[in-house]
Amino acid sequence: MTLDDLAADLRRFAAERDWEQFHTPKNLAISLAVEVGELLEHVQWGSDEEIAARFATADGRAALAEEMADVLIYLTRLADLTGIDLLAAASAKLAANAERYPAEEVRGSSAKRQH
Amino acid sequence: MTLDDLAADLRRFAAERDWEQFHTPKNLAISLAVEVGELLEHVQWGSDEEIAARFATADGRAALAEEMADVLIYLTRLADLTGIDLLAAASAKLAANAERYPAEEVRGSSAKRQH
Amino acid sequence: MTLDDLAADLRRFAAERDWEQFHTPKNLAISLAVEVGELLEHVQWGSDEEIAARFATADGRAALAEEMADVLIYLTRLADLTGIDLLAAASAKLAANAERYPAEEVRGSSAKRQH
Amino acid sequence: MTLDDLAADLRRFAAERDWEQFHTPKNLAISLAVEVGELLEHVQWGSDEEIAARFATADGRAALAEEMADVLIYLTRLADLTGIDLLAAASAKLAANAERYPAEEVRGSSAKRQH
Repeated sequence: MTLDDLAADLRRFAAERDWEQFHTPKNLAISLAVEVGELLEHVQWGSDEEIAARFATADGRAALAEEMADVLIYLTRLADLTGIDLLAAASAKLAANAERYPAEEVRGSSAKRQH
Repeated sequence: MTLDDLAADLRRFAAERDWEQFHTPKNLAISLAVEVGELLEHVQWGSDEEIAARFATADGRAALAEEMADVLIYLTRLADLTGIDLLAAASAKLAANAERYPAEEVRGSSAKRQH
Repeated sequence: MTLDDLAADLRRFAAERDWEQFHTPKNLAISLAVEVGELLEHVQWGSDEEIAARFATADGRAALAEEMADVLIYLTRLADLTGIDLLAAASAKLAANAERYPAEEVRGSSAKRQH
Repeated sequence: MTLDDLAADLRRFAAERDWEQFHTPKNLAISLAVEVGELLEHVQWGSDEEIAARFATADGRAALAEEMADVLIYLTRLADLTGIDLLAAASAKLAANAERYPAEEVRGSSAKRQH
């Protein structure tokens, strides 16, 4: 399965339910935020060690995976509707970040703060 | 390019900068929310028509693509660190949603509210 | 009741439960985002008219009020812990916005986009 | 200054600029999320110690205060438009939480996870 396959599945899913009318960029962006809010619940109170321990269990990882799936679903749907190639965009952004934060300069420096 | 390629690129990017120390699940989840917040700025005030018109321009789409790239980057990085297969998770979630919202029942009904 | 009263109540509430240890700025900021995510669920799919109609009912308004209460609670707690006077900060920000967006210039213009 | 004063100031500010048309619950909820995203930037990468040190400086605290002001501004505006008494709602929520998490039971226990 690829991101393109997922986009096609989501397109069909929405069409079969007559839900395209609700899938405006504004509503999908809100949905992204709703799902990221649910994901944040999983890191809300624990220490880094406690969180890592929870995500190392099958249940903890499954719960996290479900929230991340929702984020990917809305992100992919929004990209499909606006004609954006997510992987190309991410690749271009990573190349831009590589220029902005040269490894040799950033390494061990406080530039971490700005990334 | 695939999501797996992106995950590998991000792994290398972080390693070269000694940034793995900052990439805890908690910090990455926060970063996701920061980027979704920036994405939301693009749909903050306009009507659906105004937003669609903006995203139909090259500049508007490029600006949106950059925010979406950031969301995908942090999502992919978090998935890589926690051992989650994003596409498999999204596919499983979509199958669960298909059972929860059968097309024939949901079509044109108010079930939209709960999806 | 005032915001100062609420801050005092929250301080006591946390102390009685030995929860101060969890109330770091990072965790409280995450909690704010979690609650805003829950609030966003109430405006996720409806049109402006549908949403207004729901919030005009006692149940709809009570549900929204509960999410807004959570946002105010975490905001107040974070302000108390960092020594920030929320009302003074909001008042100063409003004065700055008044200079940035002079009423006579902004009125009916596209400056709305940037506010 | 009280929250009611702030609500009145915001009402006048919007009216003078003819911005009431943009202040739908949906747009204001999005704005809340945008501002919380900006607030999260201040806790994105640092450790709890680093963050506390930054917020202990005048500049760090002023930067945080500005983001928190924006959150309070949109929260207050939304409450005003929907007829919600924020302080009464927060007080009611705190009373409900006190019943849900009795101090004597919660103290030092893992119930922290659920609050």
